[in-house]
Amino acid sequence: MKIALAIHGGAGTILRSEMTADLEAEYRAGLENALRKGFEVLQKNGSALDAVEVAVVELENFPLFNAGKGAVFTHEGKNEMDACIMDGENRTAGAVAFVKNIKNPIKLARLVMEKTEHHLLAGAGANEFAKQMDVEFEDDAYFFTEHRYEQLLKARELGVVQLDHTADEIELIEEGEKERKGEREKNQKPIGTVGAVACDFEGNIAAATSTGGMTNKKFGRIGDTAIIGAGNYAANETCAVSCTGHGEFFMLGVTAYDVAARMKYKNLSLAEASKEAIKHLTEIGGEGGFIAVDSKGNVVLPFNSDGMYRGFVTSDGEMKVEIYGE
Amino acid sequence: MKIALAIHGGAGTILRSEMTADLEAEYRAGLENALRKGFEVLQKNGSALDAVEVAVVELENFPLFNAGKGAVFTHEGKNEMDACIMDGENRTAGAVAFVKNIKNPIKLARLVMEKTEHHLLAGAGANEFAKQMDVEFEDDAYFFTEHRYEQLLKARELGVVQLDHTADEIELIEEGEKERKGEREKNQKPIGTVGAVACDFEGNIAAATSTGGMTNKKFGRIGDTAIIGAGNYAANETCAVSCTGHGEFFMLGVTAYDVAARMKYKNLSLAEASKEAIKHLTEIGGEGGFIAVDSKGNVVLPFNSDGMYRGFVTSDGEMKVEIYGE
Repeated sequence: MKIALAIHGGAGTILRSEMTADLEAEYRAGLENALRKGFEVLQKNGSALDAVEVAVVELENFPLFNAGKGAVFTHEGKNEMDACIMDGENRTAGAVAFVKNIKNPIKLARLVMEKTEHHLLAGAGANEFAKQMDVEFEDDAYFFTEHRYEQLLKARELGVVQLDHTADEIELIEEGEKERKGEREKNQKPIGTVGAVACDFEGNIAAATSTGGMTNKKFGRIGDTAIIGAGNYAANETCAVSCTGHGEFFMLGVTAYDVAARMKYKNLSLAEASKEAIKHLTEIGGEGGFIAVDSKGNVVLPFNSDGMYRGFVTSDGEMKVEIYGE
Repeated sequence: MKIALAIHGGAGTILRSEMTADLEAEYRAGLENALRKGFEVLQKNGSALDAVEVAVVELENFPLFNAGKGAVFTHEGKNEMDACIMDGENRTAGAVAFVKNIKNPIKLARLVMEKTEHHLLAGAGANEFAKQMDVEFEDDAYFFTEHRYEQLLKARELGVVQLDHTADEIELIEEGEKERKGEREKNQKPIGTVGAVACDFEGNIAAATSTGGMTNKKFGRIGDTAIIGAGNYAANETCAVSCTGHGEFFMLGVTAYDVAARMKYKNLSLAEASKEAIKHLTEIGGEGGFIAVDSKGNVVLPFNSDGMYRGFVTSDGEMKVEIYGE
């Protein structure tokens, strides 16, 4: 059997012109570290489920990605995080939405899957559950990262809600002035949601995704990351998928499950189904990408944005890490 | 063009032995009223979107169903409600999760769709949005219904989390004792989630679903109703679907979108795709049903539970209302 692990750190407008050699090296090191830790699990005959959790924990702990420690600030200056994990063998899942002060939301999502008969817990209730589960909490200071706070101040000033990563922004009622787009673009930070998909020696697959959402978001918005079938999905008979990008489009497109449905009902390969799914995402106006594996250890990492922080490693042990498009 | 409207008031264990003639007449009157109001919209050349909203508002205002006025109580003695609406013409959607004191959550879901660029708002944030939108609020007394409160007291005493309608119950950690199942069953009230699907004279279709969730629920559980693709979905090219039942299974099965995917990728008719979807739901251990229409005005109302409060009306204007299975 072939084993495989793929990860992402978000898709969006990643401009070479704004990237320094030092910063790029830092991103690459973060991706490589997560790949290495996750792959060790697979090599030691561990489960795909454990591998994706371990990889995402590393990505959550890495401050440059918008998840865990690097989560962006909401309008109220808080860090609210979403995460989802799905086990393709047992086809079950757990997810949390806008939890606060949880060091590793992906671990909490797994506890939802394993310790409750629910699949999605949100807000204060999810935090209450976290307390009962005795997961690791961190104070606000842990989540405070200077560049995220600057993003919030800027976004508040401009009155926009920013995606984690890019040129896109989402305007709520009476917010935003389009003509200030130029100024907003200068403020973009190409940093996003994180995720991992894996195939283990048993041919079991799993997917995990974690995010800090959008800078300056309000109104308890839940995006695709916490939604089974939208931003995250896994079933051994088809594929494991973790999405990143403009979440609202992944919700309407039910994108993660759509890749699986194209495989199941049209008998497409993982590569063919993924190509069609990205084409469809582009047609409906969505920007982003996803990583996916099947139970034979095939890996794809398609996206329609300028770039996606990504990497993968398969049975031969050679790691590939990329940031930009072709 | 043929027009059509179908509605449901929840699926589950509906026992003839516990139903009186008066109560049954009351249920039927509630369903007929909602069908009539929604169908009037379609007859006057109104949109499917308006028709499903109008029908669901009537069902929310009807105290015997678990939505709006009849919503069940959470563990804390609150009424928290979820709703989702999707427009098959523009393939866009709006949803809210655990909102409080909102008279008609389905109207708020529509405002999320039309006035924001988000698709799902939850909790206090969603209530804040509701205030800005100036929707109708009601105090706790409005939502207080004696039989729902009795359900909560009973569920608290037994330490179980009850679905809206049936023999099923969901146990969280350290809750529930299986041997008390008999006593729990006596406490069942066959009353559920509500929903509507419609096809208008233009061949546009829409779906709307609203629920009060589960009695004695904790931890900010979000079920399938608020999730695009799980409990609710609509796209003109395939179908409009509104689900009811044990929500967790509809989330894992991505059931509403799965019906559409079977039509789109396998070229199945609405009836064939629905039959397969219910078969799949049964295979994964899920209980419940759904109502669905396509853009030709075909209607299906399949379920695998003992009963489902349901009704439909098509171009000839004849209303059919049913409660039990075959």
